[in-house]
Amino acid sequence: MMLSLDKLIEQALLEDIHTGDITTQALIPADSRATARLIAKEELTLAGLFVAEKVFKRLYADVEFIPGQAEGAQAAKGALIATVRGSAAELLMGERVALNLLQRLSGIATLTSRYVAAVAGTGARIVDTRKTTPGLRELEKYAVRVGGGINHRTGLYDGILIKENHIAATGGIGEAIKRARNYIPHTLKIEIETETLAQVDEALESGADIIMLDNMSLADMRSAVAAIAGRALVEASGGVNLETVRAIAETGVDIISVGALTHSARAMDITMLLD
Amino acid sequence: MMLSLDKLIEQALLEDIHTGDITTQALIPADSRATARLIAKEELTLAGLFVAEKVFKRLYADVEFIPGQAEGAQAAKGALIATVRGSAAELLMGERVALNLLQRLSGIATLTSRYVAAVAGTGARIVDTRKTTPGLRELEKYAVRVGGGINHRTGLYDGILIKENHIAATGGIGEAIKRARNYIPHTLKIEIETETLAQVDEALESGADIIMLDNMSLADMRSAVAAIAGRALVEASGGVNLETVRAIAETGVDIISVGALTHSARAMDITMLLD
Amino acid sequence: MMLSLDKLIEQALLEDIHTGDITTQALIPADSRATARLIAKEELTLAGLFVAEKVFKRLYADVEFIPGQAEGAQAAKGALIATVRGSAAELLMGERVALNLLQRLSGIATLTSRYVAAVAGTGARIVDTRKTTPGLRELEKYAVRVGGGINHRTGLYDGILIKENHIAATGGIGEAIKRARNYIPHTLKIEIETETLAQVDEALESGADIIMLDNMSLADMRSAVAAIAGRALVEASGGVNLETVRAIAETGVDIISVGALTHSARAMDITMLLD
Amino acid sequence: MMLSLDKLIEQALLEDIHTGDITTQALIPADSRATARLIAKEELTLAGLFVAEKVFKRLYADVEFIPGQAEGAQAAKGALIATVRGSAAELLMGERVALNLLQRLSGIATLTSRYVAAVAGTGARIVDTRKTTPGLRELEKYAVRVGGGINHRTGLYDGILIKENHIAATGGIGEAIKRARNYIPHTLKIEIETETLAQVDEALESGADIIMLDNMSLADMRSAVAAIAGRALVEASGGVNLETVRAIAETGVDIISVGALTHSARAMDITMLLD
Amino acid sequence: MMLSLDKLIEQALLEDIHTGDITTQALIPADSRATARLIAKEELTLAGLFVAEKVFKRLYADVEFIPGQAEGAQAAKGALIATVRGSAAELLMGERVALNLLQRLSGIATLTSRYVAAVAGTGARIVDTRKTTPGLRELEKYAVRVGGGINHRTGLYDGILIKENHIAATGGIGEAIKRARNYIPHTLKIEIETETLAQVDEALESGADIIMLDNMSLADMRSAVAAIAGRALVEASGGVNLETVRAIAETGVDIISVGALTHSARAMDITMLLD
Amino acid sequence: MMLSLDKLIEQALLEDIHTGDITTQALIPADSRATARLIAKEELTLAGLFVAEKVFKRLYADVEFIPGQAEGAQAAKGALIATVRGSAAELLMGERVALNLLQRLSGIATLTSRYVAAVAGTGARIVDTRKTTPGLRELEKYAVRVGGGINHRTGLYDGILIKENHIAATGGIGEAIKRARNYIPHTLKIEIETETLAQVDEALESGADIIMLDNMSLADMRSAVAAIAGRALVEASGGVNLETVRAIAETGVDIISVGALTHSARAMDITMLLD
Repeated sequence: MMLSLDKLIEQALLEDIHTGDITTQALIPADSRATARLIAKEELTLAGLFVAEKVFKRLYADVEFIPGQAEGAQAAKGALIATVRGSAAELLMGERVALNLLQRLSGIATLTSRYVAAVAGTGARIVDTRKTTPGLRELEKYAVRVGGGINHRTGLYDGILIKENHIAATGGIGEAIKRARNYIPHTLKIEIETETLAQVDEALESGADIIMLDNMSLADMRSAVAAIAGRALVEASGGVNLETVRAIAETGVDIISVGALTHSARAMDITMLLD
Repeated sequence: MMLSLDKLIEQALLEDIHTGDITTQALIPADSRATARLIAKEELTLAGLFVAEKVFKRLYADVEFIPGQAEGAQAAKGALIATVRGSAAELLMGERVALNLLQRLSGIATLTSRYVAAVAGTGARIVDTRKTTPGLRELEKYAVRVGGGINHRTGLYDGILIKENHIAATGGIGEAIKRARNYIPHTLKIEIETETLAQVDEALESGADIIMLDNMSLADMRSAVAAIAGRALVEASGGVNLETVRAIAETGVDIISVGALTHSARAMDITMLLD
Repeated sequence: MMLSLDKLIEQALLEDIHTGDITTQALIPADSRATARLIAKEELTLAGLFVAEKVFKRLYADVEFIPGQAEGAQAAKGALIATVRGSAAELLMGERVALNLLQRLSGIATLTSRYVAAVAGTGARIVDTRKTTPGLRELEKYAVRVGGGINHRTGLYDGILIKENHIAATGGIGEAIKRARNYIPHTLKIEIETETLAQVDEALESGADIIMLDNMSLADMRSAVAAIAGRALVEASGGVNLETVRAIAETGVDIISVGALTHSARAMDITMLLD
Repeated sequence: MMLSLDKLIEQALLEDIHTGDITTQALIPADSRATARLIAKEELTLAGLFVAEKVFKRLYADVEFIPGQAEGAQAAKGALIATVRGSAAELLMGERVALNLLQRLSGIATLTSRYVAAVAGTGARIVDTRKTTPGLRELEKYAVRVGGGINHRTGLYDGILIKENHIAATGGIGEAIKRARNYIPHTLKIEIETETLAQVDEALESGADIIMLDNMSLADMRSAVAAIAGRALVEASGGVNLETVRAIAETGVDIISVGALTHSARAMDITMLLD
Repeated sequence: MMLSLDKLIEQALLEDIHTGDITTQALIPADSRATARLIAKEELTLAGLFVAEKVFKRLYADVEFIPGQAEGAQAAKGALIATVRGSAAELLMGERVALNLLQRLSGIATLTSRYVAAVAGTGARIVDTRKTTPGLRELEKYAVRVGGGINHRTGLYDGILIKENHIAATGGIGEAIKRARNYIPHTLKIEIETETLAQVDEALESGADIIMLDNMSLADMRSAVAAIAGRALVEASGGVNLETVRAIAETGVDIISVGALTHSARAMDITMLLD
Repeated sequence: MMLSLDKLIEQALLEDIHTGDITTQALIPADSRATARLIAKEELTLAGLFVAEKVFKRLYADVEFIPGQAEGAQAAKGALIATVRGSAAELLMGERVALNLLQRLSGIATLTSRYVAAVAGTGARIVDTRKTTPGLRELEKYAVRVGGGINHRTGLYDGILIKENHIAATGGIGEAIKRARNYIPHTLKIEIETETLAQVDEALESGADIIMLDNMSLADMRSAVAAIAGRALVEASGGVNLETVRAIAETGVDIISVGALTHSARAMDITMLLD
């Protein structure tokens, strides 16, 4: 149930089709029916099946969409992702938009699942960031969850993250946390960014709920985790990639945020074949 | 002049800020002013400066935005991309959206420029595809032009590309081209996808304006180019990457379309520093 | 399949009904059912049946709409265009919007069919222009096709037409065509407006795909057609009306563009009767 | 002050320009400035100057728009309507939309003024109907006022007009008027359609505020006017054209409604010349 | 049939749910079904049942909504208002928006019905004002009708009410009425605000259709009613509350407008219980 | 900085003005200027000054708006709230919308400030609920802050509140909290509704961050506060009014949520006078 998904799909279709698919209108009889198969051309974690279905449904209400894999499944190369039956013209008109979305979301889920696998057993959790594609944040954060990650705040409105500039403008970590506590809904935790162990101590004393360790060395992370000792959540951020993530997780941090999940996930290769 | 850019930026800001940047509202005085610098953290072809400017302007009408590089410039690692002066709160609120767009567009321009460099001197031109991010096609195709590429059709409505399924539904290449010619505006060329040299001949005889060679071998491409002999534009498509593109260009094709320009361009690393 | 039609109809209904049809609400029982007949009060080429149907469907989902004529048919005076069954209140609320659209589109189709008939046998084709009603271009261009015409570019974005001012700004026909070729998608033809035979020659040498003869005499048109000799499409424009169009067609031009198709088509007289 | 005009112009420009005026982008330098003159190519009553100005302003905020005629003026053939100075590219991009609106509105104002002139001295007033272009009703009704007419209700929501079908559903003129009086805002008059003198009498007895004489003969209209004797407003409707309107007015009716004002006004010929 | 209701509900749901009901998504199985009962926790006049139904339908198309009371019914404390069956998750997601609307509309209907009861037998009618909640005017004015009131003009566009400032700007009551008569649709009555008996006389002589007595004493109202003697509708306005309304009605005025109906109606207490 | 405020004001103005303020257009000269004063007709806590200013600015860009009181000030009866100078017509057109918003927001701020005063010195904080006016939640929650309250979650998306139905569907408090913890962003606290002291204990053991005491007696609240002993935030809810709130606060709860702040705040009486 994503309330704004209909509108997003409408906009995506309008962007591609606008006043009409002139090739299809010129050549495909309106009453011609077809069956299409969506096929994975590489191994992937599948995300966005219901999105693809909605794309075809918007164009042709009576489309039959039969998943070949469950959402979140690990699909092998060559696997049948879904079978779609309906008007040939509308299948052709929806193909590109459906694939563009499905390939991107599966790309994010697949990449996330690799990070999750890399930290398996450590207790650390993989979270996303706000480095998402403008217009697609809700879907991209969903794909992160499909891949086994969890979400950081959705935007600037539903979480508080006090950064260096905020601290500087307020006069110190303690004062910043106090002012924030006074202003925000009591339902939100307060997260603060730290770059040194001294800042970690100050944040802890000021009652921060979450302490972000920004670009710290592994040694400093270990020290910070020890100092915090469970009194706040610990989030590692910066310089995270598939090579470094395991070692970071092993420092004992609770959360590792990874911008690459959404800003550099490669689109998975998925194709649509008409029978 | 992009008519729909204001709306796109509005939506991107609403997605991130929604009911408010609660951290900034809690901590940054409304009358606090700041200067921010956008810095390239890796070498890149710059695209989207005016987009970033518009993001900040939407939040704070009197922002001062001073480009440090020209649009399309090759910016070195560490280069100052732009200086932005204005309300501290609004700079912080706009940072992420401005960077998300600038990083993606510069990523596309940078990747495109590499493809263009790879075919330098061959006469072949690099073009994009419809494999773009839903909602961002106009901007992404602009970034391709900034990187030295040219654009294929924008969507299904402003170009005709007859594919295998269309041919099958019509009964043959000749009939498909004839029907299309009869239906579409006389201002559009007709492009047709071919997979064999026999199809190339048939397309040529039927008066196709552009013949796409889909996933052909280099040898077949060379034969097709020779057979067509300038009577139609020749477009190579499929299996194109930075390793293969030069050889493809050297077959003599006019146009090489590359989906990766938009679907797998990595975001360039750009940061915003507040003084 | 017109993606934006739902929105257009929604706007048209809101414009007319806004907060309610107070007469109908005051007087017609909500459960009252009725049958309405749409009747042609003059001979016409029918266009827009599916639009009228959608108007009634938007107001009353279960409406039964039975066409009395096929789209594009030549309906005689008095002919039954469609029978509509459903809620009496919603039929009355939709009547005006449905008729306003149907009458205008049929007006355009009818006028177009007269131009098409006037050039029958000459090989010339009748095309429309951008002189359409703001907001209705897609529908009006559709009506031109129903009437047997073809469409010129939809807007400024999907075709290139180099006019006098563009030539002047660029320094000459040759330079203008070269720059355009370099900028636009390779899928578009280049059309250029000419006013003299000298310009026709220059356009031809510069590789124009389509040469528009703007307000030329019949003699000059004949000369231009002879000079071009099939190497470019020839479009006649300006001063075209039902009296002059045949003679223009007989000069051998390929295309005749007629602004009047959309900017001065009279609404056909169609009425709705409730049984 | 038309609140929704900005949105209408935005939609009209998007319809024409969409992703860009590719001809102008390819050929006109961004810093090129120009002066354009809007010229009447036939005599007309000018309506819509501020609309044209807003079109150019939306594209180029600093445009200079100098009216050559006052809104509502009778402009001679060849008269300078307005001078527009600004960016050459944006003038070219706005030309068609500005003219499409200006020509249509001036067409309506011109036609209205002819009807108004035709009934001069009789005391009858010319009013419009709901037979307007979907999306343009507010502007078209404004143009009717510019031409000297007055407006009938804007839509179904701001006036009550009881027609034959409403009467039939209610069981009689008296009952219909009574129910309507009970339901509608007390600020609205009640108008009822009549086809016979008997109905006129019944409407009058039932306290109708306005009695419409639908397609009556001149003799019947005269009788109706005499019978009503000032106790209700009298509106003539149906079969009105420039030949018949004077005689209808001379029957003594107060109001004559003319659908043709908006559904069959021819666009006035106006051109834009660049210096 | 409220054309804009779908959009209003969409916005209300988006406001509350936005990117998702995270509690429900985390905890309620997607296939869990439930039955909810809407219960009146105080006596009320029910208004907005179809609105609540539409809220649930938007979230879950197959919801079963069984009214326990008719729209407009006087529901006792504890009465079952409606039973709703469907997906448990979607019932929980829609609860707050459905109740927020139902409680407000029932509040307005209930308050209106008290005013209507207070003037029973006097012949005076209770009408609303433009003091409504931004965005909800159409629904709130509907609730007034459910409560037995009638509506004043909907907005500034569908009724004419000449106030002190308008009179001052025009130079007098007579001139103001004359100019208004000349400008507005003939279907609208002219209402004018008066503060003294002298102004009442002037308004009457000038042909006002409705004379508003603004904040007059009961004695003056009686005098005004006597002076007007049925030649215009008389509307009392200002200082109206449940204590004063009966006495005002007994002065013989036709209409009493009450801002409190919409600006200070208390939300009725309605709850939703899940079985 | 409220990103969506422009759109909300646009909609509110369109709702009231739609196609035009016909009274003002008929009677007020377009070039007439005026000065208006907004006056408090009762004592109030002022909220929404910038909203009123934006209403007038949207209609007349050059309006001069001079606050007579600071936002949040306690304005005495008769106090000058603001002076507005500009076009007389646009001041009259904006009056009602500006006042409708200002009166409602000041009503909420005023009521909130009374609750805040009632608990002064106890340490308890007053918070709002989701019982807000559809479409106005962001503004109404802002007004609560102006009145000295703080905000609960904005909607279902930015806070987690586990209610009885959620617990029932999950099988127990412990399991519900565990599943929620696993699903939601780590930046959000988990709140759970309890009705008995046993549930309070269970919630505490399960690690709830916030424990809501729903409709508990004062004695139970005191016991719960003692049992929780600072290990979770305690929120009292249900049956809160100005008579009961002090005693509730004195039980030691941290937070008291009050639906009445937004669903039953009476509009403050504010008027606009033209000089």
